[in-house]
Order: sequence, then structure tokens, then C-alpha cells
Amino acid sequence: MHPLLSKLSSAEPLKDFSTAELNQAADEIRDVLCNLLETRTAHFASNLGVVELCLALHSTFDFRKDRLIWDTGHQVYPHKLVTGRYAEFSSIRTQGGLMGYPNPQESEYDLFMTGHAGCSVSTALGLRSGDDLMGEPERKSVAVIGDGALPSGIVFEALNNAGFLAKDLVVILNDNKMSICPRVGALAGYLDRLRSNPFYTGLKTEVVRALNHVPVFGDPAERLLAQMKEGVKAGVLGGMLFEELGLRYIGPIDGHDVGLMKKYLAMVKTMPGPVLLHVVTEKGHGYKPAAEDPVYFHTPPAFDANSGPAVANAGSGQPPYTSAVRDAILRAMDDNPKVTVMTAAMCQGTKMEPVRERFPDRFFDVGICESHAVAFAAGQCKAGMRPIVNIYSTFLQRSYDQIFQEVALQDLPVVFTLDRAGLTGPDGPTHHGVYDIGYMRLFPNIAVMAPAYAGEVEPMLQFALQHDHPSSLRYPKTSGFDFQHLPSPIELGRSETVREGTDGTLIVFGALLDAAMEAAQSLAGEMNLKVVNARFAKPLDRQMIVDALSDSPFCLTIEEGTLPGGFGSAVLEVANELGLDTRSLKRLGLPDLFVEHGKREDLLDQTGLSAEKIAASCREMVASELESRN
Amino acid sequence: MHPLLSKLSSAEPLKDFSTAELNQAADEIRDVLCNLLETRTAHFASNLGVVELCLALHSTFDFRKDRLIWDTGHQVYPHKLVTGRYAEFSSIRTQGGLMGYPNPQESEYDLFMTGHAGCSVSTALGLRSGDDLMGEPERKSVAVIGDGALPSGIVFEALNNAGFLAKDLVVILNDNKMSICPRVGALAGYLDRLRSNPFYTGLKTEVVRALNHVPVFGDPAERLLAQMKEGVKAGVLGGMLFEELGLRYIGPIDGHDVGLMKKYLAMVKTMPGPVLLHVVTEKGHGYKPAAEDPVYFHTPPAFDANSGPAVANAGSGQPPYTSAVRDAILRAMDDNPKVTVMTAAMCQGTKMEPVRERFPDRFFDVGICESHAVAFAAGQCKAGMRPIVNIYSTFLQRSYDQIFQEVALQDLPVVFTLDRAGLTGPDGPTHHGVYDIGYMRLFPNIAVMAPAYAGEVEPMLQFALQHDHPSSLRYPKTSGFDFQHLPSPIELGRSETVREGTDGTLIVFGALLDAAMEAAQSLAGEMNLKVVNARFAKPLDRQMIVDALSDSPFCLTIEEGTLPGGFGSAVLEVANELGLDTRSLKRLGLPDLFVEHGKREDLLDQTGLSAEKIAASCREMVASELESRN
Repeated sequence: MHPLLSKLSSAEPLKDFSTAELNQAADEIRDVLCNLLETRTAHFASNLGVVELCLALHSTFDFRKDRLIWDTGHQVYPHKLVTGRYAEFSSIRTQGGLMGYPNPQESEYDLFMTGHAGCSVSTALGLRSGDDLMGEPERKSVAVIGDGALPSGIVFEALNNAGFLAKDLVVILNDNKMSICPRVGALAGYLDRLRSNPFYTGLKTEVVRALNHVPVFGDPAERLLAQMKEGVKAGVLGGMLFEELGLRYIGPIDGHDVGLMKKYLAMVKTMPGPVLLHVVTEKGHGYKPAAEDPVYFHTPPAFDANSGPAVANAGSGQPPYTSAVRDAILRAMDDNPKVTVMTAAMCQGTKMEPVRERFPDRFFDVGICESHAVAFAAGQCKAGMRPIVNIYSTFLQRSYDQIFQEVALQDLPVVFTLDRAGLTGPDGPTHHGVYDIGYMRLFPNIAVMAPAYAGEVEPMLQFALQHDHPSSLRYPKTSGFDFQHLPSPIELGRSETVREGTDGTLIVFGALLDAAMEAAQSLAGEMNLKVVNARFAKPLDRQMIVDALSDSPFCLTIEEGTLPGGFGSAVLEVANELGLDTRSLKRLGLPDLFVEHGKREDLLDQTGLSAEKIAASCREMVASELESRN
Repeated sequence: MHPLLSKLSSAEPLKDFSTAELNQAADEIRDVLCNLLETRTAHFASNLGVVELCLALHSTFDFRKDRLIWDTGHQVYPHKLVTGRYAEFSSIRTQGGLMGYPNPQESEYDLFMTGHAGCSVSTALGLRSGDDLMGEPERKSVAVIGDGALPSGIVFEALNNAGFLAKDLVVILNDNKMSICPRVGALAGYLDRLRSNPFYTGLKTEVVRALNHVPVFGDPAERLLAQMKEGVKAGVLGGMLFEELGLRYIGPIDGHDVGLMKKYLAMVKTMPGPVLLHVVTEKGHGYKPAAEDPVYFHTPPAFDANSGPAVANAGSGQPPYTSAVRDAILRAMDDNPKVTVMTAAMCQGTKMEPVRERFPDRFFDVGICESHAVAFAAGQCKAGMRPIVNIYSTFLQRSYDQIFQEVALQDLPVVFTLDRAGLTGPDGPTHHGVYDIGYMRLFPNIAVMAPAYAGEVEPMLQFALQHDHPSSLRYPKTSGFDFQHLPSPIELGRSETVREGTDGTLIVFGALLDAAMEAAQSLAGEMNLKVVNARFAKPLDRQMIVDALSDSPFCLTIEEGTLPGGFGSAVLEVANELGLDTRSLKRLGLPDLFVEHGKREDLLDQTGLSAEKIAASCREMVASELESRN
């Protein structure tokens, strides 16, 4: 079915492929991708866009020796298909199967596991520098970075350093005019101008002629200067922004012309110093529906490639927390004109399109610039607004210092809504959001919260928006828990008891309340458990902890986060301050290792956080309590 | 003595000052600064450089209404002197006195407490955006940012967003050609070219003439293009890098000509959209020795302004940990050609100049670009090198996501040496490094260490450089503890007992061992205390914890870090896992609030971490133990 791909045990044979064969390989890759998408949700449009680029790269370099870093590794499927992973490709994004990102444990062709955007130029430069120092200057370094990741601050830091060090380095700018959503920011306009470069459009002399008609005044020198400035703005001098930073700029070139790219790559491979090659691709190229709607087709639900996209899976039961938070935000913005929302290019993932459409003046997509998003929100907040920073838990790590200095230290009431806080499933460790409880609660002034069921989302957000200090809400990628319970009013540092019982206490921080309640129900014949919705990891409900440890035979803390420094650890701290014996307490949470990819429910079960495993832990606690009594 | 300054209760009268009066005020400010420096270490050269800029700003804007953000707030002394704080200025950097950074609690003229570089453009843009939404578009927003902070990634993120939002915003680029050390990076070269701009040098026609001599080939259109490109590189088109991002670029202008600056500021104040005004200043201006050696005079020791700099204070006793680490690094680099060092513009603060001089090829100052520094090190490490990332504890927060993805997730043996880990003294909360124990130990794979005395620095660094996984060493800004003790070999997750005793155990993580030993000695008549040097916060020495909690009547954990999520919290976690009763354990560390500025020893005493206070805690533990027995 895929005569060329199926024979590739490594990328080596590609260097002898003719252009026709490379194009055939491209067709085969697209066929594999479309077949895959009939079976599962996966990254699609971005991978369709880089097929020819990937083939041109592997037929020009030998990346067992040379260094290739795919920034934002979800575009790595074609790369996996041509580096010996065709046979097992259908396992991608399933537990035990291939990762949806580069993975050094899978292949010598994968150097860094990359899921967060922007670091490729830094690591490629580090590899280049390291190879020089190791006495292997012949190894080439290539970073492939999208225009969506380009505005990320670290890219600029890396280009600044690359230009200064003047080392041989190839940066491929894969310009498809998109992040996941259409790109934003001034750089986008700049890249648009570059794409209208006469070298690309073939209109060089036209532009030169047009320059003579720019209205200018003053003396001849000023006239020339004004003309030149207009010329630069018209894109005539392509890439001066990069050239000013010390990189040679080349392009733009057509990223779907594999023959053309091979020529250019052969050239940049031998050029001294850092070079940026601007490649123009189309996200979704080769599959018309995806090219026409690359946002939908970024990670579409499973669909039939022939009959077109399926109706989006309506999901089972409750809408996800992501939607509940979005709806609560919409209502808060209706009620209060001071509420604004910041996103860092994740408008689609956080389902914020309706906010963007309804409140275009109060919705800010700053691009993949989390550091700026937080400091920008702090500025708005200081002016009297009530900004909500809506970022995935794992990506918020990119603004850790701004959470510290611009928000916590100034004690500004910025609200953080941390989506994907917990195990995100098939994306794996780059995307799991399991550190935020620990990293947030380190800083003074911040109220660290988590809704435990769907009905609690809105009151908790409202509480945060009325609180005079910074606050954060975390919630995982799952359906909201449809809990038939009227939430008690949210008060700072107060939990609520959602099930009475005297044989043990489950203290739950966040959305695992559903599993805890299920565990408690399943054990109803054996023991009568109290279940507490903690609501706050900071400040903690001290009286609740006193009660749980004094009046209850045992106590479990339950959180979808890593155990070191997490919620359970915070409970231990308070218990210690209160002089309480904690031997009857056990902390359930994620172990201190990088949890692999897989289905969230499977991963929760494996880490002891399913209802069944929570129930088993309860039985163990009772057994060990009995034992200690004997 | 200062007739003009002493009468200023706010900056308001400055707007009616003549240029001559402003210049007199400048002289008075410099006199105050020189007088101050006779009494204490303080930021000096940077403040001398912005005197005229500060006066021009305050005489053009009204910053009780308009918004002024000083990036890297140590240049804020002139600002404090003209905004009603002249009378109390001599208290600066002393406990209870003025902060050495902007402080909203001191004055309505201070909006953000800023000690970390680069966020001013983001917050000023946020203020601008917030003021618009609040219906106060007449409030102007101004960010003053140095060329040293400019390459910091968040600045680029903010400029990209500013150009896109196209809001009125004034960015003053204060270009003094320096970070604390001479600046690095490709941007430095770019700014050099801008400074040679013919508008600035008055050589416009010269450059135009020179352009005619650029050798060019090919057809007339290509010839023109080549000429224009050279023209841009020669600086003729000043500021295209900023203009491409959508900012209007103006300058460079002389930052010591207060009259000229007033004219330009009046102009940019009324310009629509974002504007960048390039101001050229001299660090140390007006005091010749400082202008000639701005690195030394960044924060010089107290000196006599007339007789020149004093001999640098030789310090009392042992050299600081900073020097001990530097020396250990030098020896490691002698022994192992794979060892490299990264700094983020803090070469002077971390005393790394000798490393830079002796190993120029293995020393990398990447500028104020902590994110890049870590990812760059990860790349080097992957190539086989053994990079050491040498960054202050608080500034390493800026690379938190790279520590996660590029280092911990890839399990690369990068070594982090965290200087200023603890209370830094007169700099205050922006510079205290008190969160790193908590934030580092969240991630899998990292060994989190701290030397407890001078003699342990070198073996611990050697251990880290031979360890196959990431590791970190933290140490505070103080003299190394001159402990007469032969360190036992460093083993992963193993503590050492440095004093035997049976009446209680002090478990110390890091440099507070000196205080703990002093406490133990002082109590020798009352009780016989065991003192343990923990060495590792991760992984912890589990047997040591068993022993301390089983065999010892009480136990104190001692750390110079915040209590939430810290070392003591890690001990509680392990004790809980081991089923141990922790009621006899008390955690000593920093409280969950932002500790103010002051002398480190005073702050330690106030937070219960001096030898006296540790001894008092021991007595309390004994008393409460007796009480509980009765």
C-alpha cells in the first residue's frame, strides 16, 4: 500500500531518491496521515503541511549525525514515518505506542522531547556549540520553527545569541500563517510583508518602480532615506529584522516544492554562520478540507477522509470543564465590563472563540507569549481591570517569574484559570499539567483553588473575580462532574463537606471528587466515609484538617497533581503546625516521575486515582489501622 | 545644601523649571548620590546615568496620573529624589527605610516593584490597555528600559504585542552600552550601528556619499537593493528592527541634554501608536571614576567621593560562597575540558570574571536571557558537554519551563548553581532567593543540593558534574562557613551527621549549618544536640529521617527558604510515607510572606533563623515535650 515508506528502515535511502520518488513518498505519507485520522484524534493539519519539508531535510542531511530539532513537536509525524517507525505508526498516541512528539527513547533521530514551543533555536545552538567543543564541527544543526512559535521570547533570545556567537546554524522558519489559531502580533504583519517579497513574487522591478512614486520631501539625502525606509517596509530588503540580529536571511521559498527546497537546503548547509531559511507552507496541504479549515483540523476528532469531517463527538454527559469555565467567563464579562481575558495562542484549545467574538475589545490573544500575557494582565489589573489569564497549567510555567514579580509581589488580583491541570491523556508528559499546585502555592498572596464539580465552576470564578488578591483555578481536561449538590457559598480557605461519614475522610482537591464519591458509594456497605471538597490548596481549611485527623480513623488526600510539594504536602504542613498526628493520613496523587501518554482514565487508574483504586486505598487504611491496634 | 531638591514635595514643580534649573537639580541629585555612596553599598553608576532622563520625564509628564515603569528598578534613585522622598533618602536600603527599587507603598509615583529585568514594556502596555478600557485614554504610559534588558525575551513579546495593538505607548530605550557588565549579543551590535546613525552623528550626507562606493553587481534593480541593504546595515535607516514590529523609532538622542530630551518627549507624548525613543546615556555620568569603570561602580562598596574608591572591603573571615563556587568551577574546568559555564549577564555578581578570562571559549554570557541560557545549556549537554548554569535563585524563575522541558524531562545532566539562594539583604523581596527548594524539587530527575560549609562546595560540585542526571546547588550571599570538619564523601541522597547528640536533632539544609552549630554549642550545658547536614532536599536521606524521628526527643528542620513546599515539607512527606509520627518535628524557615529588605543577619533573626532563635526553638521543643509528657 505504501511501497516506498514501508521499505524505509531509516531515512538514509532518501538521499538517493529522485524528486519524483520524494513526491511519491509525500503522497504515501499523506495517505498514512489520513488513514490515521479515521481512527483517532491526532495532530493533523500541521503534519500535512511539513511533508515536503521533512523529506527535503532528510534527503539533504543525515540526522543520525547532524542535529534536527522540531520545535513544538506535534508536527513530527512525517519525520517518524521516514525514520524507521512506519510499521508501528498506527500505535501513535496510544499507551505503550509511539508518542505524538519526538522521543529520544524511540529513535536516534529524535533528540529532544518537545511539546512547548520556542526552544528549538536555543537547543540547536547549544548542540552546535557543544559539537564544536567536542571536536565535531562537521555535525550540522537545524532547528525547524513555526511562525506561530516565532514571537515566543526565547526565540528572540536565541537569535540574539546565535547572531553574536556567529556559529553555523540553520533555522528553518516554517511559515504557514498559523498558530493553532490564526497568528497574531506585529511579527505576523512582518512575515506577510516578507511573503510579498519581490524575490518570492517575481515582481522585483515592479517594486523598484513603485518606489519612485513614494511621496517624499526635503533635501535629496532625506528623500533617498525616506524611499529606502518605504522600500524596506514594502519588503524589498527581505529579512532585515533577522539580518540585524546577525543571521543571514534567505527566502521565502515554496515549502511544497521538494526539489526547490533540496537546492536551498544544500546551499544553506554549507553557508558559514547562522542562516534563517524562510519556507512557506500551507497547513493542511494536500487534503482540501484541512487546508480550508486548519483550525478545526489542527487536532480534529476521528473522521472519514472520503466523506469529510464527522460531526464533532458530542461527548458523554456533561460538557468539559473547559466549556464550563468559558461559559462562566462569558457571564462574568456580561455582568462586569472590567473583566478581560488573556490567552496565549490557545483560543481553540480553551474553547474561547465565543469570547473572542462577543468581546473583541476585552479578549487578548498575545500569541505564544505566556510571559508577556501575565505581565500585560498585571498592568491592566493595576489600571483597575479584572483580567483573567487563561493558560494551560503546563504552559503557565513559562510565566513563572511574572507570576512572582508582576502578580504575587504586587498583590494584584489577577485571576489565573489553569486548563489541562492534570493528566491530559494522549499528549503525554510535555502536556500533563501536574506541577501547578506546587509551584503556585509557593508564592505569598495567591489563593489556589480547584472546582470539584461542574456546578462549582461559576461561583468559584465569581469568588476569584471579587477577591482582592491573586487567585488561580485549576481544572483538568475532562467532563465536568455532574454532581447533584448545591454548592455552599465560596469563602476564602473554607472547604465543604459533601458526604458525611465517620469511618474515614477523603479530602479531595479538585475534579477527582467524582472518583472519590464513587469510591465512597462503592464502599457504603463496608464503611461510611466522609468526603470533603477542599476547594483551596492555599489557604487551607485548618479546622477541616483538625476534624479529619482528630475525629476520623483515617484520612486520604486526593489530587491530580504530583505528590512532591502538592496539596497533600500542604495538608501535612498545616497538620504539623497544628501539632496533629498524621500517621493516619495517606496522600494520593501522581508519582514523582514523568507519566507517559495514554487515556486519562487509564493513567489515573495506574497511578491509584481511579474510584476503584481509591476504594482499595481506603481498605488498606482500615486494614493497617486494625493491625496497628492489635 | 540642595536648595532645589529639598523643596520638592512632589515632581509637579519640575514642569515649570527652566533648563538651567533642571541642570542645577541634576547637579544636586548627583551630589546626593555621591554622599550616599560614602555611607553604604548601593546602585550607583546606573543612577548617575539617568539623572537628566528622569528630570526630563517628570517635567514633561505628570506621573501621578500618567504611568511610568522603570524596568530593573535599581535606577530609580533620581526618581525617588524628585518625587517627595528627598528628606528620607538617606534611609535607602536600610531596614524600615526606603527600598532600593520602586515601591508602590512608598509613593503614588511608583507603580510596580521591579527588580527583575524586562517586564516594563508589558506592564506599561497593560496599563495603557487598562486605562483605555477604564475610560481614561488621556493617561500616558511610559516604559524606561535599558539596552541590557532589551534582549530579554519578554521585551520582544511585548513589542510584538504593542505593534499589533497599535496603542499609544512610549518606550524609552536607555542605551548606556552596558548591562552590569558590558552588554553582549547581536542586539548590542545593532544598537552600536544605530548610535552611528547619521541623524545622531550629523554625518548624513557623508553616509549617503559612502553608499555610492559600496561594491555592487548585477542589474540596476539588484544594485539598488544591495545598496539599500548596506545602507540599513550602516544605520542609515535607523530602527527598522523596531519599525518592522510596528513601533515608530526616534533617535538616538543625547540623554544628558535635558533641554533636548524635553523637546523630544513633548513630541512623543502626542504621537499616536507605540513609539520607541532611543536615548543615549553614559553609565556613571558626572562622576569620572564611575564613568570610566561602570562595572566596578554598579554597586561599589562605600567610598570617599573626593579621594576615590576605597580598597574593596576584604570581608570578615571566609570568602563568600560565591567565590568558593567560582574557584571550584575553575578547577573543574581545568580538570575537565567538557565543563562550560552559562551566565545571564551576572558575570560580576557571581564573580565569574576570572572564568570568563581564563576560559573564554567555555564561558557563555547570553545576556539577560535566562530562558535561553537553560535551553542552550541543555543543547550543549546533549552534545556531550557538562554545562553549569550559574544564575541567581530568583532569576532562575525566568527559565522555569526550560528547567522542566529541556532539562528534567530529557533527564540531561545540567548542573544549576543557584547563587543568592536565601535572603539577599538590602535588595529586598525582588532579589531574595527563597522559592527554589520548592520549585526545583517538583520536577522528577533533579537532585536538589545545598552545601552547608565552605569545605563542602568543591566535593558537591564535583559530585554534580559526575552525576548522570540534572542537579542543583543553592547557596546564599554570605561568607562560607569555615567549619573544621572533613566532609564525608558525597553520595546521592545521603546526609552526614556533623555533631552527635541524643537530646534532639537539627536537620539543616544548606548554609544555616553555621547558625545551627552555634545554637547547639550554646545549648551544650542544657542539652546535647545532634546536628545533621542534610545535603539533599531531593532525594532525601530516608534513614536519617527515621533516626531523627524515632531516636530523638525532638527534631527541627532548618532552611533559608520559604516554608510552603520547602525542605521541611519534603521531610514531612517522607516521614508520612514511612508512617512516622511528626509531632516532635518543627520546621524552621521563612514565613509565607514577602520578606522586606534589611541586613541578612537581622532578617534571619527576625524570621527565627539566627543561632539565638534556633536555640530558643530548641528550648521550646523541650518544654512542649515535657508538657506533653505530664
